[in-house]
Amino acid sequence: MRKISETTVRRLSVYLRFLEQFDAQGQMTISSAELARRGGTTSAQVRKDLSFFGSFGKRGLGYSVPELAARIRDILGLKRAYRVVLVGAGRIGGALVQYPGFRERGFHVTAIYDKDPTKVGSRWNGLLVRDVRHLESDLQKEPTDIAIVVTPAEAAQVVTDRLVHAGVKAILNFAPVQLSVPSDVVVKSVNMAIELETLSFALANR
Amino acid sequence: MRKISETTVRRLSVYLRFLEQFDAQGQMTISSAELARRGGTTSAQVRKDLSFFGSFGKRGLGYSVPELAARIRDILGLKRAYRVVLVGAGRIGGALVQYPGFRERGFHVTAIYDKDPTKVGSRWNGLLVRDVRHLESDLQKEPTDIAIVVTPAEAAQVVTDRLVHAGVKAILNFAPVQLSVPSDVVVKSVNMAIELETLSFALANR
Repeated sequence: MRKISETTVRRLSVYLRFLEQFDAQGQMTISSAELARRGGTTSAQVRKDLSFFGSFGKRGLGYSVPELAARIRDILGLKRAYRVVLVGAGRIGGALVQYPGFRERGFHVTAIYDKDPTKVGSRWNGLLVRDVRHLESDLQKEPTDIAIVVTPAEAAQVVTDRLVHAGVKAILNFAPVQLSVPSDVVVKSVNMAIELETLSFALANR
Repeated sequence: MRKISETTVRRLSVYLRFLEQFDAQGQMTISSAELARRGGTTSAQVRKDLSFFGSFGKRGLGYSVPELAARIRDILGLKRAYRVVLVGAGRIGGALVQYPGFRERGFHVTAIYDKDPTKVGSRWNGLLVRDVRHLESDLQKEPTDIAIVVTPAEAAQVVTDRLVHAGVKAILNFAPVQLSVPSDVVVKSVNMAIELETLSFALANR
């Protein structure tokens, strides 16, 4: 398979959402033009994105909605469920634990950790906040692929090293630092200020 | 100026963060190799990203840290401050209001709105939660470029229409819907499940 850019992967996620809406409404086929219109892109881009994964769709008939949705789910690794642990029971952590979109896509937050004794033992969205010193023993009992790091900047690398050592292979990082990980671990950093900067860029370059 | 992809804009934001760290440490010049290493990309990519904006740097000497930082700030529209209003005083809204990275980049959250009478009148991070019915009159008094929409899905388009009508030109959308806006308004949607899907994709395609 050719190398797929993150931008393409993100568009696939967006297409999948529309396909699921169409599917729920009983629409059986969809054209690249319609997917493009909903996704804010062009038909050519849609066809290019989908061509990465071999040939879909029949000329003039469009794509089969359930087939295309199933194929994209497969590509995105969404045919299985994922256990997710969250480290850092602060405000952003609290928002993420309640995020309704995770569970419906198969991402199950199974544990939250913090080192603050005033937080440890409290319940967040039904989950007990555990002392972070149990991280390694918990992960040994319940192997977990994905972790979300929502600690302060100065704790993020230490926590990441512990997660990686305990077998976590993918990290979503909200701490404002660049994390170092071995080459077989993937890190994706989320920075809300950078999201706003894409807007200030657009405003400044109209 | 050539069309610049969002991926490039995001990398510029990342470079800027490293340049500011170097600047604070008194480092006056930096090579494309060093910027690449810190940003998790290649020297060739750094040079390509920066070449969009004309010629920087001297062969063999690298880039001047303060000059390059100033130029990127200029490109990203960060030489001015932005007023930002936030609509939706829920959990994510609460996390965003406290987000330390906004103010230090010149994004000032000046107001929070909600329609829930149990939230209106409470204080969040020093800001009073205002009734959303004051949105238009407030924006008339204090013109605002950027809004963050953190409402439930079903309210997001109505709120967006009101914001656009009141002169807002850029929207950061956390509601899980595709927003329709006129062509002179820019919308950037943030979806945490899509962030996790870039990880499940990476895990599934190792």
